Amino acid sequence: MRIGLDIMGGDFAPVNTIKGAILALDELTPKDVLVLLGDENVIRQELRAAGVCEDLFFIVDEPECIRMEEKPLKALQEKPRAGITAGFRMLAAGEIDAFASAGNSGAMLAGAVRSVQCIPGVVRPCSATTLPQEEGGDCLILDIGTMPDAKPDVLFQFGILGSIYAQYILKKDKPRVCLLNVGTEDGKGNLQCQAAFHLMKNNRFFHFVGNMEPRDLFKNKADVFVTDGFVGNIVIKEIETFYRLIQKRNLSDAFMDRMNYELYGGSPLLGVNAPVILGHGISSALAIKNMIMQTKKMHESRISERLREIFYEYADKKE
Amino acid sequence: MRIGLDIMGGDFAPVNTIKGAILALDELTPKDVLVLLGDENVIRQELRAAGVCEDLFFIVDEPECIRMEEKPLKALQEKPRAGITAGFRMLAAGEIDAFASAGNSGAMLAGAVRSVQCIPGVVRPCSATTLPQEEGGDCLILDIGTMPDAKPDVLFQFGILGSIYAQYILKKDKPRVCLLNVGTEDGKGNLQCQAAFHLMKNNRFFHFVGNMEPRDLFKNKADVFVTDGFVGNIVIKEIETFYRLIQKRNLSDAFMDRMNYELYGGSPLLGVNAPVILGHGISSALAIKNMIMQTKKMHESRISERLREIFYEYADKKE
Repeated sequence: MRIGLDIMGGDFAPVNTIKGAILALDELTPKDVLVLLGDENVIRQELRAAGVCEDLFFIVDEPECIRMEEKPLKALQEKPRAGITAGFRMLAAGEIDAFASAGNSGAMLAGAVRSVQCIPGVVRPCSATTLPQEEGGDCLILDIGTMPDAKPDVLFQFGILGSIYAQYILKKDKPRVCLLNVGTEDGKGNLQCQAAFHLMKNNRFFHFVGNMEPRDLFKNKADVFVTDGFVGNIVIKEIETFYRLIQKRNLSDAFMDRMNYELYGGSPLLGVNAPVILGHGISSALAIKNMIMQTKKMHESRISERLREIFYEYADKKE
Repeated sequence: MRIGLDIMGGDFAPVNTIKGAILALDELTPKDVLVLLGDENVIRQELRAAGVCEDLFFIVDEPECIRMEEKPLKALQEKPRAGITAGFRMLAAGEIDAFASAGNSGAMLAGAVRSVQCIPGVVRPCSATTLPQEEGGDCLILDIGTMPDAKPDVLFQFGILGSIYAQYILKKDKPRVCLLNVGTEDGKGNLQCQAAFHLMKNNRFFHFVGNMEPRDLFKNKADVFVTDGFVGNIVIKEIETFYRLIQKRNLSDAFMDRMNYELYGGSPLLGVNAPVILGHGISSALAIKNMIMQTKKMHESRISERLREIFYEYADKKE
């Protein structure tokens, strides 16, 4: 497969992105091609500095760069030769099979929706990440920032997206999907959660196990936690805050270490027609490498095809 | 002053509530009267078992009890002789100066709003708690569960309530009030935060310092974090989750220990006409004692009077 990587994306690009690409070489097969999008001179220079043969990669010269603070749509329009713009152009044209960037996540979202587009039936895409469980394994939480104003029907769809991801990528059999809430009783929470609960209860697209609280996040009580992009983002940023607090104070152990975002690569953008991964702005080389491997997993699992099928069925049943 | 305490409120009542009341005796002055509301026989029995003179308290026999899972309004109506119902009746009649309970928080909210009522001009009351800061001291976060569907104008009022509480109770000079958000830039967040930001910017009722992220919660970047009751509840439940995770794993230190909810007593219900404190359901004796001391602080600081003044001015300026 051909994996596109935006070399200029992320706070520590291009150093960490190139290092991550080099790390990924060890795990990719000879059939995989890593397509590096960015300023060709910079890329070649970094590869030479690292003593790595430039021919191991497919380099596409895209000298522009969308910065973190730029307005997504405007930037995509005005910078046709930025890594993100070019990446989605190639993805839509089938020249790459998956695309990943730790750059401007708004531009990644807008680029994906404009180029490969949402899967028919999906109202809003979302992004997800995994959280370690105390007794081993991971659960999934979504949305973690893409849709801060998700309505109840959109939360319901996040349940479908999360369930399929947990099944295909996390290899969970019949994933348990819950709604992240402030109490476990039926009818708890704000109006948005109350309405979403009602839609999720007794649905036939995923196995709904009710409301769960933050204390259940690490307890293997559910495989998928559904929430809106505002709450989900607050939740993962609080985990990061704690992770840093305890690291700084030398209070960690093997389980707490698993809260390190680097281990998880990036956040898949779910609900669009091709594998797209959003990296963390502060991605390390390890995070970039894991992000690359995640795109491969998503492509090989054919999750996009499965999502198209289930949303076809969903749209059909709904009407 | 006369402080009312619901003896039957909390998961470990009446044992912990009685123990907490006994602990408080050491810190109260001879002028303070602790009014214990609950089943008189049970109270006297517990006090005798603890070897404490029953005459040190004013005991009001209220044998009924509103359980955690009961519907607040229905319970208040059907159980006139429950501690919570009676407590608010006494508070409204001026027979006690403050009231605290670790029982059904919905009944506490409904009871407060029905009896002593909201301060004129306050659209919705809210509850608050303090969070430890790495470099010492505390900040305030509100709402932490009372109003899960707070609209932007209500969030704005939470800013006023929090600012006055920080000034009068936490003794902060010109408290820095921020909006808890997913990014620090202007215009970040969901529609609710965007609109609240607009209202808070350049206001003259409190010192607004903009958006803050979860990573700023322990960094002394603001004295008051404003959010809605859904997000605030998720945030503090996540802190509790982490606190328990690290305690269980013996990973704590002096700072992390300060995340122990017991130290903070209870959550003041802000925006009503008298000091009302909601205790945590799992309150220990220490938490109960601290909750009692908190009601005293609120009463003595005359915070309710100050809030009535500022909301009078607010209603006046708005029109």
